[in-house]
Amino acid sequence: MAKSEKFAVGVDLGGTNIKIGIVSEDGKIISKTSVKTEAQAGPKVVIKNIKKGIAEILKTNKRKISGIGIGAPGIVSTKKGVVQNPPNLPGWDKIELGAIIKKEFGYKVNVENDANAAAIGELIFGAGQKYSSFVMVTLGTGVGGGIVFNKKIFRGEIGGAGEIGHVCIDPNGPRCNCGSTGCIEAYAGNHYIKEEVKKDLHNHPSSKIWELIEGDLERVSPRVLQMAAELGDVYAKEFIHELGVKLGVAFTSISNILDVSTFIVGGGVAGFGRPLLTTIRATMIARVLTPLKSRITVVPAKLKNEAGILGASALVFYNT
Amino acid sequence: MAKSEKFAVGVDLGGTNIKIGIVSEDGKIISKTSVKTEAQAGPKVVIKNIKKGIAEILKTNKRKISGIGIGAPGIVSTKKGVVQNPPNLPGWDKIELGAIIKKEFGYKVNVENDANAAAIGELIFGAGQKYSSFVMVTLGTGVGGGIVFNKKIFRGEIGGAGEIGHVCIDPNGPRCNCGSTGCIEAYAGNHYIKEEVKKDLHNHPSSKIWELIEGDLERVSPRVLQMAAELGDVYAKEFIHELGVKLGVAFTSISNILDVSTFIVGGGVAGFGRPLLTTIRATMIARVLTPLKSRITVVPAKLKNEAGILGASALVFYNT
Repeated sequence: MAKSEKFAVGVDLGGTNIKIGIVSEDGKIISKTSVKTEAQAGPKVVIKNIKKGIAEILKTNKRKISGIGIGAPGIVSTKKGVVQNPPNLPGWDKIELGAIIKKEFGYKVNVENDANAAAIGELIFGAGQKYSSFVMVTLGTGVGGGIVFNKKIFRGEIGGAGEIGHVCIDPNGPRCNCGSTGCIEAYAGNHYIKEEVKKDLHNHPSSKIWELIEGDLERVSPRVLQMAAELGDVYAKEFIHELGVKLGVAFTSISNILDVSTFIVGGGVAGFGRPLLTTIRATMIARVLTPLKSRITVVPAKLKNEAGILGASALVFYNT
Repeated sequence: MAKSEKFAVGVDLGGTNIKIGIVSEDGKIISKTSVKTEAQAGPKVVIKNIKKGIAEILKTNKRKISGIGIGAPGIVSTKKGVVQNPPNLPGWDKIELGAIIKKEFGYKVNVENDANAAAIGELIFGAGQKYSSFVMVTLGTGVGGGIVFNKKIFRGEIGGAGEIGHVCIDPNGPRCNCGSTGCIEAYAGNHYIKEEVKKDLHNHPSSKIWELIEGDLERVSPRVLQMAAELGDVYAKEFIHELGVKLGVAFTSISNILDVSTFIVGGGVAGFGRPLLTTIRATMIARVLTPLKSRITVVPAKLKNEAGILGASALVFYNT
């Protein structure tokens, strides 16, 4: 370890767990821990838990810490580190999380929306290092997004930009959690994929999925779909192909609006891997405006399991 | 006229006509002229015609000119004033229009994509003066767009941003001129509206449109539709309502991506007026993400017939 190397504390504030790590400037996790969020107990308890986790990881630390980065759900006013109405943290209205944590530990604190933190993670440590501008897409429970333009996050009027999960691909499509219909999240979110396969599967009695779930439809998951596709299952492969087309349609709208040509795709559903990304790319090239066609790039995210901690710690090394 | 007042030459380079005007800093057109583009004759002739038109209007001018602004179709590299592959000017590859015109007349020359020039026109002279960020939508032959963010045009990677006409609202929708399907332009472009009404009208034998067109389907136009709606025609009103819903669906995707809440709507089809804008706004409020709902604003453009000249001249007074 070079003496000049810098370290950051990365805090990934989730609805169930708070994951905390110490991360080097080149993106290595030196140590990590996790505490329960206890979201239902309200903001005071959650903040107490954040402090507890950070204190715990700092207790045994001997490295020079440059600052603390926090990736939080909801709309984040980054200048003041204020977290507003995070959807899965009940009771949070406007909380000055940055100031609270700075006061407790004395370090510089950067707070950012978790989807934007994931984008900054890829920009600083991951697949985004070689691009000036890209859209980071996280395919998980929801479809999250962060827009990086000229190496900076594009935040919009109040910090809500990048909600690419709520690009509509068919106003007569399925109901989305947001209250609207036909958002891409209503096709590509984990839960929606599971429900769709559960409905479809009876029409595909010879699908290998039946074996994998041992006949129990509750065991359907994106992971099972991926395994079946890898075993050559026609239904699973076709499902992933159709999902890629839908994502490609949504990404095309985004590219035409932003004139941004690179998409970095992460999250659990991205585990569908090359077949999914290839279909997304082919769909985009077929559909985007001519000046974009030759530039379209769709690549997997580099940060995997620890993307949350890495994204949060990247905030400290990111030049806002 | 105050002695300190500044003036600009605005050049609206269209596929058929080049419109040129001298415009004061407060957006008044002092004089104007028009020359044929002769697009089919290729770039040399078109450039000769631009020079001819500018020379003509400068001949009788006694005002102090601050510069020349040119709104051009296609992708424009604004730093160098290079116009790239404008769709309706055959033979143009990459032409340094800014340098050519500067050399001829000696004034500072700003060249900008015409849709962005329209947005800058509204920002400097029109409905955009009171907003920091908005999306300018021009509903004409196509559906054009310009994104103003923090009083600046958002240009994207190579200057192609703002192509909101090519936001897809249904991948199984009608074929669009761009080669894709279900773009909002394929529902809201003049030509598409006309074709749709021509197809529909036989199912509405009592529509007032039949009288207005004197039975000649070739006379169907957005203007006729608007007149019929104003006369209370149910079919025309329903058509405009459905168009507003479709535009609202597309604008919702744009708002969710950009976190920009204000839309300024201009162009011929915007002549549908209040009923159209009210439906767009109601659709957006029903569909956008919660943090945007209270901010959604949809207003008519202020610049009408001379929007092209005014937008182009605004480039001179715009702080890039």
